Amino acid sequence: MSDFRTSVTGPRPTTIVRPGRLAATLGCTITVVTETFQHTGSFKFRASWHVASHVAQQRVICASSGNFGQAMAFACQLLGKQCTVVMPATSAQVKIDAVRGYGATADLIDVQEMSREARVEQLSAADPLAYVASAYDDPLVIAGNASLGHEIATLHAGPDGGFDAILVPIGGGGLSSGIITGLRECGVSVPVIAAEPLLGNDFAQSIRAGHRIILPAEALTVADGARTRCVGAHNWAVLQHGVAGVIEVPEDAILAGVRRYFLEANLKVEPTGALSLGAVLTNPDRFAEQHVCVVVSGGNVDPVVYTNALQNLS
Amino acid sequence: MSDFRTSVTGPRPTTIVRPGRLAATLGCTITVVTETFQHTGSFKFRASWHVASHVAQQRVICASSGNFGQAMAFACQLLGKQCTVVMPATSAQVKIDAVRGYGATADLIDVQEMSREARVEQLSAADPLAYVASAYDDPLVIAGNASLGHEIATLHAGPDGGFDAILVPIGGGGLSSGIITGLRECGVSVPVIAAEPLLGNDFAQSIRAGHRIILPAEALTVADGARTRCVGAHNWAVLQHGVAGVIEVPEDAILAGVRRYFLEANLKVEPTGALSLGAVLTNPDRFAEQHVCVVVSGGNVDPVVYTNALQNLS
Repeated sequence: MSDFRTSVTGPRPTTIVRPGRLAATLGCTITVVTETFQHTGSFKFRASWHVASHVAQQRVICASSGNFGQAMAFACQLLGKQCTVVMPATSAQVKIDAVRGYGATADLIDVQEMSREARVEQLSAADPLAYVASAYDDPLVIAGNASLGHEIATLHAGPDGGFDAILVPIGGGGLSSGIITGLRECGVSVPVIAAEPLLGNDFAQSIRAGHRIILPAEALTVADGARTRCVGAHNWAVLQHGVAGVIEVPEDAILAGVRRYFLEANLKVEPTGALSLGAVLTNPDRFAEQHVCVVVSGGNVDPVVYTNALQNLS
Repeated sequence: MSDFRTSVTGPRPTTIVRPGRLAATLGCTITVVTETFQHTGSFKFRASWHVASHVAQQRVICASSGNFGQAMAFACQLLGKQCTVVMPATSAQVKIDAVRGYGATADLIDVQEMSREARVEQLSAADPLAYVASAYDDPLVIAGNASLGHEIATLHAGPDGGFDAILVPIGGGGLSSGIITGLRECGVSVPVIAAEPLLGNDFAQSIRAGHRIILPAEALTVADGARTRCVGAHNWAVLQHGVAGVIEVPEDAILAGVRRYFLEANLKVEPTGALSLGAVLTNPDRFAEQHVCVVVSGGNVDPVVYTNALQNLS
């Protein structure tokens, strides 16, 4: 057996699913572009690989208790670089184990005593030759995620394409700004609509205000990949005039999306990944009769959160 | 919007997933060939489409409370044929609704009063011009499922191929005999191993006896697609000397397969579909360091059964 890692030369192509039952019940054509089978289970590997392979530094520092930390740890392992991931000591053990399993150092902190940002600064000061990686606010992140935009552009131009709208979950804005950048590089002008938790709607507020709004605290939305208080500056530069709109998705619609994917598409999706379908569910008339491309950002979800989502909804 | 049905011209290509975490914990290379995103959510559409499009009859009768009924109903709907599916009146309402949703007649019977086979005979006698379709014991079924063998052969010959073994769930034998037929048509001689529930091990008994053994009753295995009492005669003709072996999978290993797919591959799989991974889990040494291709037959599973599988295992 050859270790499969030796054959990894970058992100995997995304996976396309066309769920007939879901489309029939929604009354529109649905193409799901899902990153659940990407390396480490989310789109975050695209940017992590791009960052880790493009910076000269041999050591990478980042803060993440979720998909970004695992993705950066794995990218660094593949590229022979060292990676330190700052995580709250209260993180789920499976997440700590996953980061360590990819060969990174899990730097556990008491967030009551020190913020993640402060700890990253401390580590960076102690090791100025290390690269401090942002999960979204970095042109290299946008360029890495643009690869998914290129794939969607190819799909749009193909025999099963012709999208009327592309819906993308938004947290820090790394994925949406990357997809828009990639689509525009390919000359595709299909409207891209951001899907944001209503509970943490900094981006919707920002669009309405015309400038970035920072929430006073992280929203406790079930879409834990979208708890960011504000989109990044580099992302905003792309998004402010790049998105065709933003849909604020209530918590129950996010969970309904998780459940509909399970029941009608055989897809295991994490709540953040279900934001784009949740946006369709909250606006059925807007997308009726259209061909909608919904992007699923990832599939890593705690079994308890997942079974609750399956059980608590009709 | 064009109805997506108008664009369906046959089965979809299968979906390939290469779960790195699962491979790492198992100590072998794993390629998952999953039919969970096939039309109607299981491989059954391959044979249903092949049968319905190759027989001259305009009406099809079959018995199924599961994936085959839905698949045949949908295939007939697409091809403009009439379909009657005999189902126990006690079938889950979602399954009855699904069959009806695909435009078929759900013929509900009290199985205490009349067997499904007897009811099919009754319907056939009343409509002798209708085609009585078997879920597995039919050369057309084997030919339809051979298309998946062709796809696996192409995969095996490709840059990520080179399988040491191909593991396939077995119930009536339609899928396994079809895959073997398709592989051999392409000149691929990789060993194909059948994965059967230990609780309903008629095929393992048959292989040991050298002739088909019929179980006295359907086994109540959680792998409800493999409750058949015996493989079909046409399937046995292919399988008796075509399989390289059979692995009997205990119930807890089937459920562990469902859970491992969820946790380490982001795949939603029905218990029958998890048989092939369950066979690897029960024989880790046998497959260590090998490149194993595991076939997932489908993903349609009741949410309660699924959440139990996630909760009840460590």
